[in-house]
Amino acid sequence: MTQVKDHKASSIWGGRFEQSVDHIMEQINASIDIDKRLYKQDISASKAHAKMLVATSILNASDGASIQSGLDQIEAEIESGKFVFRRDLEDIHMNIETRLKELIGEAAGRLHTARSRNDQVATDFRLWVREACDVVAVEIVALQDVLADLIKQHESTIMPGFTHLQVAQPVTLALHLDAYHQMLGRDLDRVRDCRKRLNLCPLGAAALAGTSYPINRDMTADLLGFDGVQINTMDAVASRDFATEFLFVAAQCGLHLSRLAEEIILWSTTQFGFMRLSDSWSTGSSIMPQKKNADAAELVRGKSAQLTSNLLQLMMILKALPLTYNKDLQDDKPPVFSSFDTLVLSLRTMCGMLGTAQWNKDVMRDAAESGYATATELADWLVRTLNLPFREAHHVTGKIVKLAEGEGVKLTELPLSDMQEIEPRITQGVFAALSPEAALKARNILK
Amino acid sequence: MTQVKDHKASSIWGGRFEQSVDHIMEQINASIDIDKRLYKQDISASKAHAKMLVATSILNASDGASIQSGLDQIEAEIESGKFVFRRDLEDIHMNIETRLKELIGEAAGRLHTARSRNDQVATDFRLWVREACDVVAVEIVALQDVLADLIKQHESTIMPGFTHLQVAQPVTLALHLDAYHQMLGRDLDRVRDCRKRLNLCPLGAAALAGTSYPINRDMTADLLGFDGVQINTMDAVASRDFATEFLFVAAQCGLHLSRLAEEIILWSTTQFGFMRLSDSWSTGSSIMPQKKNADAAELVRGKSAQLTSNLLQLMMILKALPLTYNKDLQDDKPPVFSSFDTLVLSLRTMCGMLGTAQWNKDVMRDAAESGYATATELADWLVRTLNLPFREAHHVTGKIVKLAEGEGVKLTELPLSDMQEIEPRITQGVFAALSPEAALKARNILK
Amino acid sequence: MTQVKDHKASSIWGGRFEQSVDHIMEQINASIDIDKRLYKQDISASKAHAKMLVATSILNASDGASIQSGLDQIEAEIESGKFVFRRDLEDIHMNIETRLKELIGEAAGRLHTARSRNDQVATDFRLWVREACDVVAVEIVALQDVLADLIKQHESTIMPGFTHLQVAQPVTLALHLDAYHQMLGRDLDRVRDCRKRLNLCPLGAAALAGTSYPINRDMTADLLGFDGVQINTMDAVASRDFATEFLFVAAQCGLHLSRLAEEIILWSTTQFGFMRLSDSWSTGSSIMPQKKNADAAELVRGKSAQLTSNLLQLMMILKALPLTYNKDLQDDKPPVFSSFDTLVLSLRTMCGMLGTAQWNKDVMRDAAESGYATATELADWLVRTLNLPFREAHHVTGKIVKLAEGEGVKLTELPLSDMQEIEPRITQGVFAALSPEAALKARNILK
Amino acid sequence: MTQVKDHKASSIWGGRFEQSVDHIMEQINASIDIDKRLYKQDISASKAHAKMLVATSILNASDGASIQSGLDQIEAEIESGKFVFRRDLEDIHMNIETRLKELIGEAAGRLHTARSRNDQVATDFRLWVREACDVVAVEIVALQDVLADLIKQHESTIMPGFTHLQVAQPVTLALHLDAYHQMLGRDLDRVRDCRKRLNLCPLGAAALAGTSYPINRDMTADLLGFDGVQINTMDAVASRDFATEFLFVAAQCGLHLSRLAEEIILWSTTQFGFMRLSDSWSTGSSIMPQKKNADAAELVRGKSAQLTSNLLQLMMILKALPLTYNKDLQDDKPPVFSSFDTLVLSLRTMCGMLGTAQWNKDVMRDAAESGYATATELADWLVRTLNLPFREAHHVTGKIVKLAEGEGVKLTELPLSDMQEIEPRITQGVFAALSPEAALKARNILK
Repeated sequence: MTQVKDHKASSIWGGRFEQSVDHIMEQINASIDIDKRLYKQDISASKAHAKMLVATSILNASDGASIQSGLDQIEAEIESGKFVFRRDLEDIHMNIETRLKELIGEAAGRLHTARSRNDQVATDFRLWVREACDVVAVEIVALQDVLADLIKQHESTIMPGFTHLQVAQPVTLALHLDAYHQMLGRDLDRVRDCRKRLNLCPLGAAALAGTSYPINRDMTADLLGFDGVQINTMDAVASRDFATEFLFVAAQCGLHLSRLAEEIILWSTTQFGFMRLSDSWSTGSSIMPQKKNADAAELVRGKSAQLTSNLLQLMMILKALPLTYNKDLQDDKPPVFSSFDTLVLSLRTMCGMLGTAQWNKDVMRDAAESGYATATELADWLVRTLNLPFREAHHVTGKIVKLAEGEGVKLTELPLSDMQEIEPRITQGVFAALSPEAALKARNILK
Repeated sequence: MTQVKDHKASSIWGGRFEQSVDHIMEQINASIDIDKRLYKQDISASKAHAKMLVATSILNASDGASIQSGLDQIEAEIESGKFVFRRDLEDIHMNIETRLKELIGEAAGRLHTARSRNDQVATDFRLWVREACDVVAVEIVALQDVLADLIKQHESTIMPGFTHLQVAQPVTLALHLDAYHQMLGRDLDRVRDCRKRLNLCPLGAAALAGTSYPINRDMTADLLGFDGVQINTMDAVASRDFATEFLFVAAQCGLHLSRLAEEIILWSTTQFGFMRLSDSWSTGSSIMPQKKNADAAELVRGKSAQLTSNLLQLMMILKALPLTYNKDLQDDKPPVFSSFDTLVLSLRTMCGMLGTAQWNKDVMRDAAESGYATATELADWLVRTLNLPFREAHHVTGKIVKLAEGEGVKLTELPLSDMQEIEPRITQGVFAALSPEAALKARNILK
Repeated sequence: MTQVKDHKASSIWGGRFEQSVDHIMEQINASIDIDKRLYKQDISASKAHAKMLVATSILNASDGASIQSGLDQIEAEIESGKFVFRRDLEDIHMNIETRLKELIGEAAGRLHTARSRNDQVATDFRLWVREACDVVAVEIVALQDVLADLIKQHESTIMPGFTHLQVAQPVTLALHLDAYHQMLGRDLDRVRDCRKRLNLCPLGAAALAGTSYPINRDMTADLLGFDGVQINTMDAVASRDFATEFLFVAAQCGLHLSRLAEEIILWSTTQFGFMRLSDSWSTGSSIMPQKKNADAAELVRGKSAQLTSNLLQLMMILKALPLTYNKDLQDDKPPVFSSFDTLVLSLRTMCGMLGTAQWNKDVMRDAAESGYATATELADWLVRTLNLPFREAHHVTGKIVKLAEGEGVKLTELPLSDMQEIEPRITQGVFAALSPEAALKARNILK
Repeated sequence: MTQVKDHKASSIWGGRFEQSVDHIMEQINASIDIDKRLYKQDISASKAHAKMLVATSILNASDGASIQSGLDQIEAEIESGKFVFRRDLEDIHMNIETRLKELIGEAAGRLHTARSRNDQVATDFRLWVREACDVVAVEIVALQDVLADLIKQHESTIMPGFTHLQVAQPVTLALHLDAYHQMLGRDLDRVRDCRKRLNLCPLGAAALAGTSYPINRDMTADLLGFDGVQINTMDAVASRDFATEFLFVAAQCGLHLSRLAEEIILWSTTQFGFMRLSDSWSTGSSIMPQKKNADAAELVRGKSAQLTSNLLQLMMILKALPLTYNKDLQDDKPPVFSSFDTLVLSLRTMCGMLGTAQWNKDVMRDAAESGYATATELADWLVRTLNLPFREAHHVTGKIVKLAEGEGVKLTELPLSDMQEIEPRITQGVFAALSPEAALKARNILK
């Protein structure tokens, strides 16, 4: 007898749970809606496993051939949309195995020899994350390429560099964008490290303790493109640090994109005015045509939260889980799938926005001259030419800038005599150091 | 010109992004797949708005009537599955408005008078979360009812109480389960506080600065069952703390469930053996029929991570967002929808598991006698009867328990003379205090 | 025999762990460095407990008096800095009890009668969080007062309202700041709900199962200002949702502050120029005197991450903890202490920054006129006066704004005849609707 | 005029904020209490910078020599506890520079030539995290060594392997512990990848845009043991992904430890009874001497939450930060310091607990025989010997186990004739496969 009562149907919950308790159990237990995304990996892994079983004489060749062709047919059915996924079969593995039995009969039952769902799902998931790493790597490089084009175009596009969002010193747009190129380079590195580390095969671990069949783990690993086998069978079915690592790498990349997104939003405001997004990558207002909402950048910014929270989710799932497989691990896939989709979409959005934006060079250059952004150059000139200690040079510079500010002129517009009243040894040569171009030229910026 | 290249299709990413950049923008920008779940709230809010526009003579009665019947028809179309959602129309609001225009013509355009998508979506979302609070409250009470039945049945079912997962003192199963009843009571309280606090109407805030039409905000609020209007128009469209509060309340409730789930998992092990889940609420093994995997409890335990990470996601989205509406806020709905579904499913799963489980009273009582769980009673007897200071009584008790342990007997089996060797003033009366039943009876446990 | 080796001392780890393993255990186990902050609550609770023990004749009056005066002396010693905290005594409770024994002898041992460290620490911590709620409430009100003063001063200070960080419509600074006043009002509400919910007394729960002494739980609760007792003894020692609720409330308030902080940072840039922080609340550069880094606002913004992660820490600790007390709970206090300190500091910093800032009204008003921020007024005029459907009015407005933009003039500067070419029925009356002041006056903004 | 009011002192907030607003600003702004931990790195970096300035003739040799000896003296002062840290000097950099000026006069001012606090702090922090990686690596290896000893000792210690915390199949304690050895091996790998990736030198980036002095960045990098320079100057001062990566690596390792800690807690219960912690690594009860609370394991378990939340804190700080340095980044150090301390303490605690624990081999072996843990062996025997399809063999096994369960006997105790009633082809040879030892011997477990 169950205490579950039939609550009045709610418009936001619908009729889904009004049936028997069995439906609630099915609802919480079934993963097919999620893990059908692993179908290709599951079929590949099964084909490799069957091939190995034949090679080790655990399976006869005829059964092996039936399994291969049955799996090929299932793959075709799924890709053509003809396959009927059944929730009562719980997951992708049972859906495929059941269909295989329909297609080839008793031999289907031999496929699961020397294997368990525990090592099977660990293998499928690793194969999937491995491919996810490869795709993400391609997408990061694509964004780096977009940036590289812009960097080449804007090597002499002057803009203000900011600290604390206050104009600090002149830089180039190339330098600024290259900073993101560098960050993405490290993200790429991390993706590759992640891929390298996860590329070991769990198959053969069976439920948790291996199998008594004379299988050849190396062969299966090799067929699936793994660098080797995951030797410890309990570790093979219980660990998911390959997935948390992927989630971290994706989240960190997303954070880098969120910083760039923030700058696109700022630079697109009326107040900054450094850039203008193309129509395809912004939304407007039907009544304020000058308005260019950087919606796509805002979404990329916000999605860094999705990426970070996906990481938290899996880390919290793993906390304090005893070995080996526990059903909590069924929820390892949604955050990984979500982070992959979100990151790829964010990267492609960035490519689109940056690749089509217009840059207002004049506005940027003007901003670089405002705010006495070359005051540091003046101080450096005082140290270099007059040999003032650094802290004293700063003090003198402060006085001069204050004077210029009081008179409402730029540093380059302040008469030499005014400067000399503060520090008599200053000469005409100082002016050569005070334009943004001179400032940039003098410095050791490599891009 | 765009730098986006057409990468080779990947099996895990598919063909979705192989088209033009516009499709990427549409992909990141459209929310219809998510927010169609707001259709009922959107229609209710539009009907209330239209009614108010008529009452204030901003809209004429005939247009008002067309709008009402058009919206009724759309609701019917959606609920019967006939409505065609279009992604190119981005969100639920534009999907409904566009259909309304098809149905009633020009009057549809007047519905949006004195309203903006910003106050519209804030209103829809509040209505949805309000109903979510109501449903969650019902589900919490349902689980409390299941617990209440068990508490009534197990008022004299003795079991060990644990600290540090070590047997500490005898308690009853009723007391143990009532602890969860109490926690759920506070969760319920928090749901109600959340509902009460959010029940103010944003409609009339328009984009962010109100409207120049002579609208009647009180009337709309009243028609929609709100307790009043959200006075500040910028706050109305920019704030989402009602959503984070809901997410917190759900996550805290999920954590309580995760603790209960952990205990169900422990108690179902061979080692503890306190309870046995019914077949419908556990999974077995085809070859180990005695195995009862508490899958559903494991899933509930793991899903507390989903609930917590949903909270983090929205909090991180909100961090440092300038006023008022920013597109990042579009991602406020997925975590809320997910937490609602996850929590309701977890609560119902708990009802099902607990309502159908069997309890092994003998095993529990035995466990309560093991581990000298009544040693505290002995110490209390020494203080109460012999007036020993508490710390000294503990010392004496320690010696006696050590003696019993050495001889491999229970406290109640130790001869009085043995006890008297350690503390001569102990009398026969001590034994009455040492059974679990006596221990429980003596104490001030109210349940 | 232990496997712990003595690693070479590292400059960042120091000599702390070079001694015996016992020191590592002490290091991880001792909480005195943290929980000494509970000394006042611990002493209050002990005094109330002793008073109740005397009233119920469990303790004699003379021992009771010794305990009261001993505890008073200990409190004085701690507050004068004379008390020596000993790490080998682990926590604040044992430090105080040990000192009490030194001061009053054997009677000290009777204080712990009918009590356990489990209910003691739960009581101390609730008392502390209760006071934390009170302090936070005062600080929130203080910031609301600062905002209220500014709101009064700036009721007619016009500024642009933003959506997507793009100028949207004119608003007042009063309206903008009042949005934060409202948010803080809800935060205050939540603090009070949290305080109300937690104000029940755990004392009497003892280790987990109550006590066989004839104690009077109501009396102790009453003496400590609680609204009642926490009836279920297992819940009393095992639950920490009162702490997570406090952490959530603090984090949500911190998020509100992070949004305001973001705006202060933006508004203080050269590009926005809406405000200027006072010297005491910003840092400058010795060589760029015009630079005003909004360091304090940046810190408040960043500290919302501390507040959020403190919440997550305790939530993750609580996940899947079986009842009742587990040592993991020792780490409940650091996040709570940290969030309290961080939030109070952030609130006070905001008071300081806002209370001393200068506002550049002219810059703000100019910005409100830029970007055709009154285009909405034009559209509304078309609907109201010419009875155009809303969507068509938008279309017409778009054309007019485009025309003005093309000619480089404001809407108010566009000749009537130009407008009439687009929509012939427009009259001179339209201009009255197009200034920011008119726009504001027309609308239903209540502040 | 400030609106900050002097609130009544509270017992939990104390007098700290009762002074002037300046004190609040100092409180939120100063980092010296935290970053003094960077003193050694700051001094090393300054010495390398000065040496390079001399080598490039930017600084004369005599000033260079004064700086070197002054810095040496300061290091000695700090290490002997004589250095007076001043909060009004804000951070470690200004504390050291100010002291240097006291010691060597004007030359101290020249040290900061061609450097800024932005590249200085980035360098110090990288040096610190690099050493943190090295220490963590040593500690991980130390725990691996403890595990390796245990693995060697327990190669034939039989215990049950669990899935879903239900007995599944027999394994060895060696295999179980080796799973953790493997996890730690990947953690170690990640630490090394992190170290490798961060080992580039930011010095020379100055505030954000490099310097006009003819510095030699390669030389400084080389002197400090970096593998090269961080070329992009904006990236150098704005990025903190090296710190998030460290935090992730530490958190993931902490999660692995939390799983092991959970098992230690479970295995130490009366119910499991697999192990017994030594007195130094557990706490007891003065009255229940048999009680062994695994406090240290509980703390390690809980501290995984600290490690995870530290990661989230820095990730949330970085979200949407525009380039380059923002004061929010001041809060990058507390989570890193905390994670380092927490992880090292957790690792050492694990070494201590495991290195001194006792293992109850008999209890473990008994548990491995319970629950028909060799049913899988029976099924495999049926497939292997009788060539049954896998799924059918499972079915037969299920029936046999059910029979044995009904008669209350182990599989090995069931008469052959009983088995043959279910499957007539079973022979006496089956029994050889059914002991835990045989099961283990037959399988491909490599440890």
